[in-house]
Parts: sequence; C-alpha cells; structure tokens
Amino acid sequence: MRPEDAYKELLKWSRKLALLESIVEILEWDQRCYIPQKGNTYRAEQIGYVARLRHEMMRKPEVGEWLAAAEGGAWCSDPLLDESVNLREWKRWHERATKVPSGLVEHIARVTSEAQTVWAKARENNDWKSFEPCMAEVFALKREEAEAIGYKEEPYDALLDQFEPGVTASLFASIAGRIKEDLQKLVDSVRDCGKQIDDSFLCRRFPIPIQEKFGTMVLKRLGYDFNAGRVDITVHPFTVLVGPSDVRITVRYDEHDFRVGFFSMVHEGGHALYDQGLDAEHWGTPRGMPVSLGVHESQSRFWENMVARSKGFWKFFYPRLLQHFPILADVSLDNFWRAVNKVAPSFIRVEADEVTYGLHIVLRFEIERDLLNGRILIRDVPDIWNQKMKEYLGIKPPDNKFGVLQDVHWSAGLIGYFPTYLLGNIYAAHLMEAISYQIAPLDDLLERGQFFTILDWLRTRIHLLGCTYRPKELISQAIGQEIDPSLFVGYLKRKIAEVYGVVS
Amino acid sequence: MRPEDAYKELLKWSRKLALLESIVEILEWDQRCYIPQKGNTYRAEQIGYVARLRHEMMRKPEVGEWLAAAEGGAWCSDPLLDESVNLREWKRWHERATKVPSGLVEHIARVTSEAQTVWAKARENNDWKSFEPCMAEVFALKREEAEAIGYKEEPYDALLDQFEPGVTASLFASIAGRIKEDLQKLVDSVRDCGKQIDDSFLCRRFPIPIQEKFGTMVLKRLGYDFNAGRVDITVHPFTVLVGPSDVRITVRYDEHDFRVGFFSMVHEGGHALYDQGLDAEHWGTPRGMPVSLGVHESQSRFWENMVARSKGFWKFFYPRLLQHFPILADVSLDNFWRAVNKVAPSFIRVEADEVTYGLHIVLRFEIERDLLNGRILIRDVPDIWNQKMKEYLGIKPPDNKFGVLQDVHWSAGLIGYFPTYLLGNIYAAHLMEAISYQIAPLDDLLERGQFFTILDWLRTRIHLLGCTYRPKELISQAIGQEIDPSLFVGYLKRKIAEVYGVVS
Repeated sequence: MRPEDAYKELLKWSRKLALLESIVEILEWDQRCYIPQKGNTYRAEQIGYVARLRHEMMRKPEVGEWLAAAEGGAWCSDPLLDESVNLREWKRWHERATKVPSGLVEHIARVTSEAQTVWAKARENNDWKSFEPCMAEVFALKREEAEAIGYKEEPYDALLDQFEPGVTASLFASIAGRIKEDLQKLVDSVRDCGKQIDDSFLCRRFPIPIQEKFGTMVLKRLGYDFNAGRVDITVHPFTVLVGPSDVRITVRYDEHDFRVGFFSMVHEGGHALYDQGLDAEHWGTPRGMPVSLGVHESQSRFWENMVARSKGFWKFFYPRLLQHFPILADVSLDNFWRAVNKVAPSFIRVEADEVTYGLHIVLRFEIERDLLNGRILIRDVPDIWNQKMKEYLGIKPPDNKFGVLQDVHWSAGLIGYFPTYLLGNIYAAHLMEAISYQIAPLDDLLERGQFFTILDWLRTRIHLLGCTYRPKELISQAIGQEIDPSLFVGYLKRKIAEVYGVVS
Repeated sequence: MRPEDAYKELLKWSRKLALLESIVEILEWDQRCYIPQKGNTYRAEQIGYVARLRHEMMRKPEVGEWLAAAEGGAWCSDPLLDESVNLREWKRWHERATKVPSGLVEHIARVTSEAQTVWAKARENNDWKSFEPCMAEVFALKREEAEAIGYKEEPYDALLDQFEPGVTASLFASIAGRIKEDLQKLVDSVRDCGKQIDDSFLCRRFPIPIQEKFGTMVLKRLGYDFNAGRVDITVHPFTVLVGPSDVRITVRYDEHDFRVGFFSMVHEGGHALYDQGLDAEHWGTPRGMPVSLGVHESQSRFWENMVARSKGFWKFFYPRLLQHFPILADVSLDNFWRAVNKVAPSFIRVEADEVTYGLHIVLRFEIERDLLNGRILIRDVPDIWNQKMKEYLGIKPPDNKFGVLQDVHWSAGLIGYFPTYLLGNIYAAHLMEAISYQIAPLDDLLERGQFFTILDWLRTRIHLLGCTYRPKELISQAIGQEIDPSLFVGYLKRKIAEVYGVVS
C-alpha cells in the first residue's frame, strides 16, 4: 500500500471516529440539559453502544497496517506537516486503544453514564452513601484501565497522560507541592494583612434573565459566535464540542450571587472560544483538535481570571453592568473589582478565588492518586476530604454537598483530570505575560475593548494550531520561553498586593 | 443453527437497530429544537452516518440465515406469539432493506437533513425558489427508492406501504375520492346554513407561559408522564420516541390564537400516550413498537378531536380554563365549544377544522402521487397547490408560506405519509364509537374526567399490543367490526349538526 493511500484511509477512519465521538457528545449534552428523568437508563445504553462502536473502530486491525504503510510518506522529513502531526497522534490513539479491551471500555461508559445520574441525585440530597458504591465501581474500572494501558511509575500516570500528554503523577506532585506552599503562604498573608474586602453587594438580587442578557452581551463582545453555539443551564457548567460549528456551553446561575453565573459563563466561554477557533478544515483529525485539557483550561482560566477579573475589563464593562443592574449604582468600579477578586477560603471549587483554587486541585489530586494507589479507601474519602480542607484552607465543609459530592468528575470517570486545571492556570499566567509583552499590557487592551486583538493572538498561536505541537511545546512557542510555574505565583502575588493594597 | 439460537441473534440485532434508530431520533430532535444554525451541516453528516450504520445492520447477510433458521421454531403454530410477530416484521424489514442500496439510504438521509434546514428558512422567507431544488432532489431520490423496493401498480405504493402496511395508492385514492365528495358537501352545507359561529374570542391575548401551564395540566390529566417526556417549542410540532421512557413532544404557540398551541399539544400528546404505552419489556422489537402511522395518527386525532373538541371534555376543563384565562369570563361554555369546532376553510393543515382537514390531505396525496408518476413537475407544484385549494376549499393561499411551504414532510422525505393522517381520522372515529358502545358514551366519560378509563382501554387494545396484529386487524379487533370509512363522515355530520344546530 502506498503511503498516500494509507494516509487517505486513516483520514476517513479519523473522521468516522470524530462522528461517533460527536454523537456521544450530543447524547451527553442532552442527558445533562434536557433528558426526562426516566430516560437515563436507556441513555446509558445508547452511550455505551456508541462508545463501543468507537472503540472497535479505534482498534481496527487495519489501522496498524495503515500506520505502518504511512510511515514511508514524503511528509516524514517534517514533523510539523499536517500529515506528520496526524500520524503521530493517530499512533498514540491506536496504541492506547489496542491495550484496553472493548468490553472494559463499554463497561466504563455505561457505568459512568449511570453514575452521573446517581451523583446528581446524591448531590441534591446530600447523600454520599448512595453514591459510594458507584464511585467504588468507577475507580475500580479506571484502575483496571490504567493497568491495561500500562505505566512506568504508578497507575495514575496512565490516566493523566490522556488528558495532559507528557505529565506524570510525580512530576505534577512536585509542581503541586511547591505551589501548595506558595498558595498557603499567600492565603496567610491575606488573612494577616487584616484588610477586609466588602463583597456583600455581589449577593444582592440579580434576576437571572438579566444575568443571561448581560452574560450573552459580554460573550458576544469576547468573540463567542452564537450562530455556532448556545447557552443552557445545568448543575455543573460545561462546554461541549458537538461539531465544527456547534460549540455549546452551560452555566449555573445564582440569583443572589452575581459571581456564580457570570464567571462560569466566561469560563466556559473561554473553552468555547478555543473550540470555535479550531481549524475547521482539519475537523475530525488531530490537526484540528484541541491539544490537551491543560491548554483547554488555560483558555477558560485566561478569559475568566486574567481577563474578566482584571481592572481593565471592568473599566470597559462596568458602565454596561450598571445599566443592567442599577442595584449596584452605589458601588464604585474599584470596590466592585476588589470584590470579584476577594480571597477567601470557600467550599466549592468552581466558585473559589484565584488563590485558593489551586489548593482545591491539589486536594483532589492527592485523593485520587492515593485511591488509585490503594493507600486510602473510598469509604474514607469524605473524611479525608474534610481533613484536607481544614489543613489547606482552614475550613470544614458543613456537609458532603459542599465537599466530596460537589464535582461531576469522579462519577464521569474523569480521574487524572483535575491536575489539568492547575496546569491551565499556570499556562494562562504565561499567556497574559506574553500578550502584554508582545502587543500591549493586557489591562490596556481590555480597557479599550480590544477583545478581538486578544482573541486573534490566541487563535493564531493556540487554537488554529490544533495538535501541531505537544502541549508544553505549544505554550512555549506561543510565549517565547520555557514554562515556569513560579510565574503563576508571581502573578497572583502582584494581584493580591494590588487588591489588598499590601506587599506580601 | 437451532431456531432458538437464531431467534436470540435476531433479538440482539433488533435491539441494536433500535439503539441506532433512537440515536437518529435524538439527533433530529436536537436539530429541530436547539441546534445552533451553523451546526446543521455537520448534523446532516452525523445523521447520514448513523442512518448508514443502521441500514448496513439491517441488511447484514447473517440476518437472512437467522430468519431462515428461526422458521422452524415451536412458535410457528401460533402467529400471535411474540416470536411469530417479531419474525414476521423482521422479515419485512430485511426484505425492504436488502432491496435499497446503502449508498442511496445514506444519500437520502443526508439530503433530507439538509433540505429541512433549507425548508425552514424558505418557509420563514416565503421563498419557494430556494426550496425547489431540494424538493426536486428529495422526490428524485424517493422515486429511486420506490423503484429499488418495487411495487405492483405504481411507485407510490412502495412508499405508502412503509407507513401503512397493506394500503396501496389506488385503494387510498378510492377512499379519498368518496370522502372528498362527502366533505365538500359538508363544507357546502355549513356555508349554506347561513349560521355564523363567533370564534373571535379565541384570538384574544393568551400569554404563552399560561398556555404552557394549562396545557401541561391537561396533558397530565390525560395521562402523559412528564418524568418520561418533555415539551419543547418548534415551528412544526412533532412527537419523538427517544427511548422506552423518553417520549418528547413539541408544540407551536400563538399568543393570539388559543387553538394553535392547545390542540397541537393535545394532538402530539395523543401520539406520546401511544408511545409511552408501548410494552417496555419488548422495547427494540416489533412486538413493542407502534404498528403503523395510521394507527399512530388515530391516537393523536382521537385525543385532539374526539376528546378535546367534545362538549364533555370542556364541561370538565372549562372552569379550569377560565381560572387560567379570566379574559374568557364573558364566553359561555357552549359558545367556546362551538368556536373550537367552527368549520371554515383555511390555509394551514395543522390548524384546520375536522371537516376541512381531510381535504388538505387529499390535496397533498394527489400532488405527491402525480409527482412520483411524473404527471406533474416540481416547478408547477405551487400553482397546482393553489388551484386545488381553490377547488376543494374555495380559498387561495396569499403566498407559499400559507401554501406549499407549510409542511415539513416533503423536505424530510416523508412521501406517502399524508394518507395516514386521513386513515387516522377514520380509525379514530371508530375508536370513539367502540368506547362509547363498550364502556359508556365518550362524552359522559369525559365530563366526569374519567381519562384513565379511556387511556386504559387504548392501552389494552392498541398500545400494549405493538405489532401483534396488522394495522387494519388491530383496529378491527379493538372495535369489534370491520373498518368503514363512512362512519367517519357520519360522525362529522352529527357533530356539525349539533355545532351548527342544523340537520344536513
């Protein structure tokens, strides 16, 4: 078989995989947004079935032959050609897939689909016990998956690698360990500075339809294309890439806390801008796919924090916010900006401030790593969770709804996923620095409403490149230097100093 | 292969087909309810792909062998056993499927998916020309499909038979011909009686959220399970069976016409009651499936017209309606009931009264039959439509939005589907007679709010039986006599006499 023909077969195969994947996405989107309660059982069957078709296609025996035949193509000389990029990633997919038996894949899909339903109910009723067996089953299955994939040091590596290629548990543990100390010190310094920030006005009444209107307006200004997306409401906000021009987000509103809806909307909007910015010409192939979850999270966190929690952003949007919510008329821009940047240990990760957020991640990482290594038991997780919350953040959740039951991830089988959130923060701080250095201080761009300038920079250097580079390379290329986790801490220190008017 | 083993294989195969089918349903539901505009192109690819998988599975070579092997089973002696029922229908499926090439099936799925998008826009913009090429393509492809399937008399038969097994174009033409005359006479007698019915109050302001509330309350009373369904809003209302406990409907509201939303809701609710009443134990096999579109329509029309346009129904619900809409306080129950039964030629089929409705169907049937037989051209259809409207109903549509562009069917490839609407009316009249005879006059049951008594009768005799009998047999069994189209006309005559206070 000629390399060109083999490549063509692989292209067709890859696009079929994308079709199946996109179908799972819409099934899951519907399940999380609109499905009637009794429809969940059969939905699990539907998802399990498509997941199995997808997995069978992934491990088709011909794929190995095509990959081998395509090796000899003219593209070999340049690893940055579309063909080389795709072949590299396809090989990675195929290797993973052939290692995990179809039955296990389908089993995991079915169990996690059902577990999400159980979780949603358990969370609602604050009922850990009803979720515990599901969680045990999910972890047992994911451990089995990790064994099937194989790893050098520990099972966690096999899972983390799917989300952030090239990062291992021990590497992340060393980054997390240092950052944990730095963040705890920062939290301490805020506490010790004695300055109180008033954020009580953020808990006035913000009618949800007006929150929707304001958020929609902001998303449009940032560049989100509503003709290629939509916003729905779910318990746990998420973004879903249904197709090349169909990128949907969901949000959760709280009428009595402006932050909940608005920042989740910008966060998911950041994810969506990445997905909407992928190269449609390469849809269904790695060249047109997001490179990693860490990079994905760098986009959401960049827009949520570096952009939407900056002073420049609010200099631009605050007058518009006041038009929507005259109830804030007595609040100065400066006080509003301080309030949305208040640092205060809290229970819910997605509502955490930028400083304590990282500690929520470290906590989850440590727990799931210990679970996979058999160092702790599922039944002890709520207690361990609460102990760590006390240790890292100085607070103890009142119940499991505010603790171990808050995130969808474990029910969805997304183990090894949390580290990408912290990596995303680290990358995001770098992106901010780079834009400020290469174009103009980010705050100035924002104050002038030059959102498309920023989006354009991200499009060219991140979104449109797909999997051309590996995650770390991609970021390094974009920022023009090596990644340095301490830069994120430096960014936070400067911000805290400004918000609290102290030098830590 | 033992017959039992062959049957087991067929069962698995049938359930996989149902999974694929159900996935197409949710993809289409999303497309009609929530998809962002730019997502339509890729959605067409997704649907086309699953349709092809489904078609490939349908024509798997092993199926023929399994069917042959299962012939010798112990169930052969009794055609009403579940196994016999399933085998009979599977054979029918398989025969049809092996006749139509996979490529054509996929082509039709893709073209009709795109055509629906084009149609929705064309209808919105009253722009027939933009839809004309799509319609031509759909009809050409469906003609090709009919040729592949084969037929005795004319291509239309091959298409109609999928929707209403056992009915041919010429058989339906003879029923339609007689009914057309009767209905025209009825329309004339209403016009000539000189009595005017005031329905202007139905066009007062009915806020949509309150329409939703009232409609939801009614649907619940009729027996629709909202934990196994939901109601959304679309241009063209429809019902979709997503899974054994997931039956969704959509409606279209008009703030200034109470009838539009309410009767579409009860109509789709009637479809949904059938689907929710199928035997879940037999999900994914013919034994647990609706038997035909005609029978399906008999359910929707029964609830919409025989139930929700009866005096008994409004004796029960009118006080509740007034609570929701005090704006009707000056309208007597009797006048309200007359108004919702007013006979007046109008342009839109789904809003037509019971008498003129049949004429809308005959018109469509004649056009699509002539198109398939090559007796007329696509480009002439708007004119022919308007001429027939003038001839049958005495009115001429002001534009194509109120004419040829009003229905989704042709864009969706649903040719040969319209006759089932009239058949449904005929069956529905029989069901009303039978219930009145076997239990108590329908009007009395309704006045007393005994909706579950009615639903229970339908469940036992229709819904739970699935495909046990062929459509005509099923209805005959339920009503205890042969089907007689003139009974429907008799029912209408009596109703008109009461509504208009005249004897025709």
